[in-house]
Amino acid sequence: YVKKVLVYFASMEWYCYALLGIITALMSFFMDMTVAKLLNAHQWLYGCLKGHHLLQFLCWTLYPACLCALSTSFAHSICPFSAGSGVPEARAILLGMDMPDYLSLSNLFAKLFGLICTLASGSTVFLGKVGPFVHLSIMVGPTFILLYENQMEIRAAKGEMLVVASAVGVASCFGAPVSGVLFSIEVMGTHYSVRDYCPCFFAAACGAITFRLLSVCSRDQETIQALFKTSFSSDLPYQPFEIFIFALLGLFCSILSCIYLFCHRWALRFIKTNKPISRFLATEKSLYSAIVAFLLACFTFYHSAGYFIAAELTMKQLLTSLLDGTSWYTVSQNASVLSEPQKTFWQAWNPPGRSYFQTLGFFIAAKVGLLVVACTLPLPAGYFMPVFVYGAAVGRLVGEGSAYLLSDGISSAKILINPGGYALAGAAAFSGAVTHTLSPALLALEMTGQCSHAVPALVATLVSNAVARAKHRPSFYDVNTLLICLQAPPLNCIFLAFLSSEALAFFSRLPDSPILLGTINKSQLRERLHQHRNEVIEPITCRVITRTVQSY
Amino acid sequence: YVKKVLVYFASMEWYCYALLGIITALMSFFMDMTVAKLLNAHQWLYGCLKGHHLLQFLCWTLYPACLCALSTSFAHSICPFSAGSGVPEARAILLGMDMPDYLSLSNLFAKLFGLICTLASGSTVFLGKVGPFVHLSIMVGPTFILLYENQMEIRAAKGEMLVVASAVGVASCFGAPVSGVLFSIEVMGTHYSVRDYCPCFFAAACGAITFRLLSVCSRDQETIQALFKTSFSSDLPYQPFEIFIFALLGLFCSILSCIYLFCHRWALRFIKTNKPISRFLATEKSLYSAIVAFLLACFTFYHSAGYFIAAELTMKQLLTSLLDGTSWYTVSQNASVLSEPQKTFWQAWNPPGRSYFQTLGFFIAAKVGLLVVACTLPLPAGYFMPVFVYGAAVGRLVGEGSAYLLSDGISSAKILINPGGYALAGAAAFSGAVTHTLSPALLALEMTGQCSHAVPALVATLVSNAVARAKHRPSFYDVNTLLICLQAPPLNCIFLAFLSSEALAFFSRLPDSPILLGTINKSQLRERLHQHRNEVIEPITCRVITRTVQSY
Repeated sequence: YVKKVLVYFASMEWYCYALLGIITALMSFFMDMTVAKLLNAHQWLYGCLKGHHLLQFLCWTLYPACLCALSTSFAHSICPFSAGSGVPEARAILLGMDMPDYLSLSNLFAKLFGLICTLASGSTVFLGKVGPFVHLSIMVGPTFILLYENQMEIRAAKGEMLVVASAVGVASCFGAPVSGVLFSIEVMGTHYSVRDYCPCFFAAACGAITFRLLSVCSRDQETIQALFKTSFSSDLPYQPFEIFIFALLGLFCSILSCIYLFCHRWALRFIKTNKPISRFLATEKSLYSAIVAFLLACFTFYHSAGYFIAAELTMKQLLTSLLDGTSWYTVSQNASVLSEPQKTFWQAWNPPGRSYFQTLGFFIAAKVGLLVVACTLPLPAGYFMPVFVYGAAVGRLVGEGSAYLLSDGISSAKILINPGGYALAGAAAFSGAVTHTLSPALLALEMTGQCSHAVPALVATLVSNAVARAKHRPSFYDVNTLLICLQAPPLNCIFLAFLSSEALAFFSRLPDSPILLGTINKSQLRERLHQHRNEVIEPITCRVITRTVQSY
Repeated sequence: YVKKVLVYFASMEWYCYALLGIITALMSFFMDMTVAKLLNAHQWLYGCLKGHHLLQFLCWTLYPACLCALSTSFAHSICPFSAGSGVPEARAILLGMDMPDYLSLSNLFAKLFGLICTLASGSTVFLGKVGPFVHLSIMVGPTFILLYENQMEIRAAKGEMLVVASAVGVASCFGAPVSGVLFSIEVMGTHYSVRDYCPCFFAAACGAITFRLLSVCSRDQETIQALFKTSFSSDLPYQPFEIFIFALLGLFCSILSCIYLFCHRWALRFIKTNKPISRFLATEKSLYSAIVAFLLACFTFYHSAGYFIAAELTMKQLLTSLLDGTSWYTVSQNASVLSEPQKTFWQAWNPPGRSYFQTLGFFIAAKVGLLVVACTLPLPAGYFMPVFVYGAAVGRLVGEGSAYLLSDGISSAKILINPGGYALAGAAAFSGAVTHTLSPALLALEMTGQCSHAVPALVATLVSNAVARAKHRPSFYDVNTLLICLQAPPLNCIFLAFLSSEALAFFSRLPDSPILLGTINKSQLRERLHQHRNEVIEPITCRVITRTVQSY
């Protein structure tokens, strides 16, 4: 009877979408809470041991090492497919591949628990949660379909539910519904059915609102607000000429992203091809994780290099401090009257004997290496958030630089430059360049609740994307996909998976697609297939081709 | 040589997209400027005639009547297809119909000039510009394709260019790039190629930034800001419990939208079926426009009903006054110390002898009728903006009501309610409900630069959409499409256009689709076609079906 009343208002699927959003948001919130408690415990212990350098060192290094080892061993013993971010797998599933291992319940638990451990190891390991959350949400989604009665509906609803779930994953991670919808459009497929648009929007809104409401209920916040709320002055957010600096920032970010992606590719290839390491990794994954986490922690220890890279701040604190609206140049003039959280941040970025330019520069230089090493860890982890924070640091450096130069250097007029806006634009630009997506521009706005910097974020992201995508360079997801031998949505890669070796050899000889990535036109494809040995196309290939080229 | 250098950086199409955005933004900006000058001239003349009631009456009524007559006669003498908003036609073109008349150069000029006249008749006629701008942009887009060299490219680029143009139209009208992209997704088709996503984003950003930069260059604004910039206090934008009021507002808006759409349908049908009117309209379109505009102006004259509906404010002023952050309840306490623009708005909404509740209520009641009458005018005009302003008024009424009740009525604690936020959410909810789209939620945020009210706007829009879409009610665009006998993207309507009369009769007998609107599943379609006379499906139908059902 209840079901009848419910169905009177809307069909069953809408309740499923709402449930999906709410459950994912609940998972996200309780994960955040657990991680915050674990991080606090670590900080408390570290604070208690003040004065004992050796004990502090052990506390700083062994805690993340143990957690990473635990995460790896747990994830791998329960479900070996749970390592990594899960976005490449999710793309393959959305394209219609059958991968039941990746949607199993054991994978869900392995991922959930492993992710908590990974996040709890904090800014030492410097990994995020959005990728695995997309995967988690995709695992949760199809279970609701069991509520349906009609068999035919079930078949049709599954594909829809997966698309919706990908939007929900992003939305309930950051409380950013519209970015979730855009993410589901751009990362997830080569063509998008407008029929999925409303469900995506609805489920993403449910997820985002639940996630933000929970933090109101837990008395963290007085009302529903952005996750990393900033308060820039809105009278004159930026001068028109600053648009050029933002465009330059986008260019700078894209160059850095190319360097980062190159190092990342190189590291992954090195691990795969280096005999001793790959043999060691095949058998002793947990030990490898522990060792790498220990080394990372050694580097970020306060009395070694951590002194110069604000290592004691958590990722959330890092982002908050980088997005702060007042320029550090102004702060340095009257540092004595700072309030409590600001003072901690200021001390972290401006340690005695070093200026904030040096720490920021060193942070940017060192974190590339640290990030690349951390990405080789075989545990459930997201790679978006670290890139986002890194971009914010790059933006902050540019912003502080221009604030320093323009406030009383070159220009005679008094111009107040807001480096927080540069950090915002930099974060959007860098993460956009690394993942080859445009949604970070909106995500940065939704996360900070700052609409005034919409144009700078957009300009920086567009410029960085244009440069990063030139010459068919692979994105971060493509790199991962290539190296873990998964099928990426771009057409050529699908070919890779399904064509016979002859055809594969032919495609790898194509001049304009050196690493078999990127997309090609339907007409071009048809022409090429026609010219060269038509016989290699087997039925299964044809099915996949038609599936993919429909939209071209 | 220059071309070579350009092509070195990016392929030709990207320059075309950028050009499209810039040119549409230029058109939009100069149209705004011309319209503002014409409106100022009218206001100046009206002000000069102060004291002479008859002359004022003539000035108030004849100016819009002449402009509407001019707009109609010009548009119809140059190109009879230029009347209306153009969005239904644009949808049909995007679906692949060949309609050269709607993309001709004469149509472009007729639309451009007609639209200026329509807009210059001001808040008396109360029509907007976004629909025709989407159409204008779609007319401009394909001309750039002539820059291409390769013939095959031209064929492929045309479809892409049309999708991009629809995004640019919205973006350069309001300076809202992301909403433009969402608009192009949701209104324009049943499936969306992700390949078009980046071009859409890029062109929309070019359009929006150019549009905002132009107003900086003309010294209207100091820097790039939102079109209707608001400054709500961001410390505590709203209490969590207000979410329920926002949801109720959404419900209220959807009910109003149903009433509005019903009246609109009725009016259009009445005009079509009433013999004398339809015969008169067939021959004397300009006279009809002049008479209707004259009657509308008589009603909105200050010394008749205009006194109660703030008729002397332009649409921009209306929106600005409704979105104002301070509640009128507070304003009424200290009305004597108001600054200049605020004082005008306050006097308009709070004329001597009436409270602002009465004016708002009367505005809402009267404008439904006025809008319905205005929508029957056969001239180039947009129907989105009036609906948006109307929704803002509804939201303001609810907001002022709760501010009045909660500030020192029911609750003992001092709660400051911001009616501007309600106006924002109401505008998004009402325009979303009328057009059956979700993008107004984002559009309202981008237009006002106010991210803090993202959740309320989203909640209100989702609720209003859910109610408005229930029972397959037709949206505003569908109504227009049906009545002007155009082919709307929903599948059944396409059938309408191409099937033989037998099949048409069959489809009209389907119980779940009484007015041949809405979408049906591929499987359902196949089943039904199989059951009933397979022979009626002619080749041309099949082509259209496959084109449309691909995405289901």
